[in-house]
Amino acid sequence: MDLESVRRYLEKGGGEEEDRNASTINGLPLRFFERFIMQDLRVDLIEPGRLICTFKVPQRLLNTGNFLHGGATATLVDLVGSAVIFSVGAPATGVSVEINVSYLDAAYADEEIEIEARVLRVGKAIGVVSVEFRKKETGKIIAQGRHTKYLPVANKCGTSFDQNGCNWRHQQ
Amino acid sequence: MDLESVRRYLEKGGGEEEDRNASTINGLPLRFFERFIMQDLRVDLIEPGRLICTFKVPQRLLNTGNFLHGGATATLVDLVGSAVIFSVGAPATGVSVEINVSYLDAAYADEEIEIEARVLRVGKAIGVVSVEFRKKETGKIIAQGRHTKYLPVANKCGTSFDQNGCNWRHQQ
Amino acid sequence: MDLESVRRYLEKGGGEEEDRNASTINGLPLRFFERFIMQDLRVDLIEPGRLICTFKVPQRLLNTGNFLHGGATATLVDLVGSAVIFSVGAPATGVSVEINVSYLDAAYADEEIEIEARVLRVGKAIGVVSVEFRKKETGKIIAQGRHTKYLPVANKCGTSFDQNGCNWRHQQ
Amino acid sequence: MDLESVRRYLEKGGGEEEDRNASTINGLPLRFFERFIMQDLRVDLIEPGRLICTFKVPQRLLNTGNFLHGGATATLVDLVGSAVIFSVGAPATGVSVEINVSYLDAAYADEEIEIEARVLRVGKAIGVVSVEFRKKETGKIIAQGRHTKYLPVANKCGTSFDQNGCNWRHQQ
Repeated sequence: MDLESVRRYLEKGGGEEEDRNASTINGLPLRFFERFIMQDLRVDLIEPGRLICTFKVPQRLLNTGNFLHGGATATLVDLVGSAVIFSVGAPATGVSVEINVSYLDAAYADEEIEIEARVLRVGKAIGVVSVEFRKKETGKIIAQGRHTKYLPVANKCGTSFDQNGCNWRHQQ
Repeated sequence: MDLESVRRYLEKGGGEEEDRNASTINGLPLRFFERFIMQDLRVDLIEPGRLICTFKVPQRLLNTGNFLHGGATATLVDLVGSAVIFSVGAPATGVSVEINVSYLDAAYADEEIEIEARVLRVGKAIGVVSVEFRKKETGKIIAQGRHTKYLPVANKCGTSFDQNGCNWRHQQ
Repeated sequence: MDLESVRRYLEKGGGEEEDRNASTINGLPLRFFERFIMQDLRVDLIEPGRLICTFKVPQRLLNTGNFLHGGATATLVDLVGSAVIFSVGAPATGVSVEINVSYLDAAYADEEIEIEARVLRVGKAIGVVSVEFRKKETGKIIAQGRHTKYLPVANKCGTSFDQNGCNWRHQQ
Repeated sequence: MDLESVRRYLEKGGGEEEDRNASTINGLPLRFFERFIMQDLRVDLIEPGRLICTFKVPQRLLNTGNFLHGGATATLVDLVGSAVIFSVGAPATGVSVEINVSYLDAAYADEEIEIEARVLRVGKAIGVVSVEFRKKETGKIIAQGRHTKYLPVANKCGTSFDQNGCNWRHQQ
């Protein structure tokens, strides 16, 4: 790919369709991202430290190869990974320290996938979870990731924690 | 957080606003994801193996802490990382093998950030790049990630490669 | 720590004991490293794609906190991870592309740990495995890592592959 | 590789030479590992937040392909990465949370390599560094890794911290 094509790919996507999308995108509301990714995710099992969801790969999250975009997978590692940390009683706060994902197979449009998140450790300050994506029909692994969060404890921020939050800089 | 709240967070988000979003989301077109993330990204420098972009954090990509969502950052590692691989002449194909990101600071709404991608190696089969996110004003690092891709070479797929592509299973 | 102490830590360790070690180290044979790490590892179960080992934490591999050194854990992810790739019939070659490890708990001297390696995918060119370290007594997770290898296939190197090997540059 | 060969590789290495090594290994002193790796590392530059070392690849750290073992590289990410965290005044304690390494090229016996470590962030609780390995002669990148540490602050452990240390469980 020549340099000008790379620039155009990043700045414009590919053509007229992209221009129509631009006005849609600019009109999207505050914090639209999470719902955009998780819409129609279904929780099949939830217990402290373990979570299984079903997700039918939607057309909006496909990449140019017409399978689930790697960025969407990474975001699901973040979101489902955070949720399983909450499931052991951790407060719904904390910040991501590290996310990693190995991509192992493609998940195509309308394919049902199973996402299993498992707490590896939730300590006083650090939580680490593993998240695995499998094809529902065959059990074949699509991706595996880990998510590490820093979990600020109440007494480090004082009693004002729940009302006002600690900002990121204070938390870390 | 109790288990029922965790389930609701994953399945529904938080309330009425989410219901309105649901119909918007279901109407979004095929492969909307990439433009949704990259809209208004600007390329400042592009040379073989190196790429610098500017991105003003948009409201749609905020997390509940009101800073750039970790999933959006990971997606930008994917997208800008792929682009810098193309910049050294690799074909615009290949599949992600691994993405990792360390989160170091928060980027707030309307803040200008600089994204620098650098090729660490592009061999015959494997490409690895580093992507760093910095605050434009101070140079402070927001995140650093790496992206590893498997790059199928033409002669493994035959002459039909450019026209028809190799699907993921054939490529790996 | 002041800068001079950091330099001394890297170059000298801490004192006289280190000088005695220096002559021992300089006398160690070619490729001593792998046995140095794996000595007394015991394989409890081996089947295609899955491997369980027992390892009693030896004194030589402790860190200054007197628990298993993180570098030793990472090396075991490499070694046991490679072995489980061989177990599905892959040739005993290939090069590491990526290793990552999350450290979750300490393993003290003489503690028995269980190392379980599992193939996530072995394709034509890429193999990815997961390796988990647990306390034998309690099952508590000590560390979890992933290892990604590039696996050169015979026909890319030609018939000379098995006799002469492909060097790293040719493989990737 | 058949399963019995995989088992033998893990438990025994390859033959008589390994038996001789076994008695050497069992006689090695407590915490031998760090010096075993770092022996003859030389610090060329040290300033707060940045560190450059030179290392001549020793025969003892080679893998079966006769280049620097991936486990040794990962250990150097750990050790040099910890040192650069100390260089900004952090206490010489803390535990590893995550280490990752991308392997990009081979470093052969007696080749001089340059290791550069750079602090990405050292906050109150979390430190993250980047470590890059390059061929001294050509500047070509051999490996790049990141190391994340949890840094217990004095006031969480009380005044006894420097004398007695906090054990791992208390720190995290």
